[in-house]
Amino acid sequence: MTLQAIKWQDNQLYVLDQLLLPLESQYINVRDVKDGWQVISKMQVRGAPAIAIVGCLSLAVELINTSFEDKDELLDTINKKLDYLVTARPTAVNLQKAAEELKAISKKLYEDNLSVEDMVKLVSSWCQKMLDDDINTNKKIGWFGAESILKSAGGRNVQLLTHCNTGSLATAGYGTALGVIRSIHEQGRLAQAYCTETRPYNQGARLTAYELVFEKMPATLICDSMAAALMNCRKIDAVLVGADRVIRNGDTANKIGTYQLAVTAKCHKVPFYVCAPTTSIDLNLGEGKDIPIEERPCEEMTDIAGIRIASPGISCWNPAFDVTPAELITGGIVTELGVFKPSELHTILQAQ
Amino acid sequence: MTLQAIKWQDNQLYVLDQLLLPLESQYINVRDVKDGWQVISKMQVRGAPAIAIVGCLSLAVELINTSFEDKDELLDTINKKLDYLVTARPTAVNLQKAAEELKAISKKLYEDNLSVEDMVKLVSSWCQKMLDDDINTNKKIGWFGAESILKSAGGRNVQLLTHCNTGSLATAGYGTALGVIRSIHEQGRLAQAYCTETRPYNQGARLTAYELVFEKMPATLICDSMAAALMNCRKIDAVLVGADRVIRNGDTANKIGTYQLAVTAKCHKVPFYVCAPTTSIDLNLGEGKDIPIEERPCEEMTDIAGIRIASPGISCWNPAFDVTPAELITGGIVTELGVFKPSELHTILQAQ
Repeated sequence: MTLQAIKWQDNQLYVLDQLLLPLESQYINVRDVKDGWQVISKMQVRGAPAIAIVGCLSLAVELINTSFEDKDELLDTINKKLDYLVTARPTAVNLQKAAEELKAISKKLYEDNLSVEDMVKLVSSWCQKMLDDDINTNKKIGWFGAESILKSAGGRNVQLLTHCNTGSLATAGYGTALGVIRSIHEQGRLAQAYCTETRPYNQGARLTAYELVFEKMPATLICDSMAAALMNCRKIDAVLVGADRVIRNGDTANKIGTYQLAVTAKCHKVPFYVCAPTTSIDLNLGEGKDIPIEERPCEEMTDIAGIRIASPGISCWNPAFDVTPAELITGGIVTELGVFKPSELHTILQAQ
Repeated sequence: MTLQAIKWQDNQLYVLDQLLLPLESQYINVRDVKDGWQVISKMQVRGAPAIAIVGCLSLAVELINTSFEDKDELLDTINKKLDYLVTARPTAVNLQKAAEELKAISKKLYEDNLSVEDMVKLVSSWCQKMLDDDINTNKKIGWFGAESILKSAGGRNVQLLTHCNTGSLATAGYGTALGVIRSIHEQGRLAQAYCTETRPYNQGARLTAYELVFEKMPATLICDSMAAALMNCRKIDAVLVGADRVIRNGDTANKIGTYQLAVTAKCHKVPFYVCAPTTSIDLNLGEGKDIPIEERPCEEMTDIAGIRIASPGISCWNPAFDVTPAELITGGIVTELGVFKPSELHTILQAQ
């Protein structure tokens, strides 16, 4: 068994219900775009790369199972469904960028001399290819991140801290920040991986811990509030996180708590790395404050597994993400193209 | 109904089981020192001042209900039982200091011309008096803390952030850091109180939120990881926490997560206050690293209300406290004697 959040088999899409992990391992059959929107919105699948892939593949399933009068109807459907899909969650940019790319490709196919069936086939293939592409991208991120961290460590094995889940479950496989940790482990250089619980959804305690145990990596769970004490008590070589959106100046939106970790890492002189594919980079936005931050329902903080854990009547503030300013990303931004300073991103990407 | 963690009625001691709050409100009859040790160790009662009071009162109940041959046996029992009680939890100093004082008083009473019965009566009265003394102390802390914070705020109403529970439930009543918030609310100057969940025991979500709702204060719950984002998004006028032990140089042991909050507050230029009675101050220790830090069982992080929330097989690091260095306590240390800079503590207390 390998950990697979997204399965594509015989033109069917299955998504592992991450709300039930680690207690239950159950796949949801996503039959159309509406199902795709639901699993993303409910966070049954999460992680910026995985959201993009599931969104696009849910469209592929729907297209395969629908009869279209003509190419006009097909193109119109693709555009409308993509516009709907990107409303499922606002902060991650990957689905938005994939939707734009898919719209452009569809428009081109529409203009070519192709049948409706061929157009559906090519659009669907493009979506399926996202799965393989994402794994390849993540392996490169893993390699570049490992190289940078191990170089700083000299000959020592390293102790790393990560937040939320950025592993196989957040991507098509391998992972981004957790991919870097995986790569270091594969090289026999991981002394200890620490993961935060990541309240309120406990992606760290439920998902990252699950992946770390599954891969037999030396690993320890801490509460989100313990990172500063950890950096004081035990040597931490680097903090690694993923990203939902990195903007032009390098400011990065990621799971709530990332900013506090970055502040804490800076104070303890621990290098802080953001690990993300270039599909998470949004050159259109210039300032962190322009990134839309999703606020989630109060119940996600006050209840766990149907049990009320907070006092009745209390109000909550539940932003799902925060923005880490570029100057706190001291280790660098690890992409499939290499590790860059936040200030270099713009130039590197425009040269591509 | 007022929130009362500790009740003394007709020579009986009742302790509100804080593990069941807010869902159930159930009192435990503490019949002897062994029961006292248990409720402290299991965290059915917590908070440095409350632990000291419950410990001493559990001894009072036992003494009242025991027949002693003579004063030698009584004094020997008091000393042994106090030595046992202080082993229940290592970090807070209040019970340790109360035990030392009670031993000294008992020795003096032993040397006076008193009967066994009178000696039991006087020891028991001293323990009962701790309840009233603690409330008076807390009201003074509330007043001094409010004065300092409101002075800095000019005419504005203030937004405050607190961690863990330092209210009626952590003390004999009124509270320390929450006492300051209560005092500001009584003066009509509280715009908003934010409380952290305080993982892994959720004292913030369960107990502080309960007190804030109960007192109808404007209040909002956040996750521990959200403090930095909160300070960035909304104006926070001060962070207030309690203390389990403040040492000679002002370094302060308090609930895990306090140090990270202090780092975060410093980075955002938000004044950071430690609010504690002088009974929490331990002039015998010179450096933060000398404070014993209790590590609690893994299950307190991985399970909530009997439900496993973390992946099976993951290791945990679960320190119950951390140490905040004096230089991060930028607002001051609020005691019943006034608000002091950490560096002033030593001189002020020795002058007492």
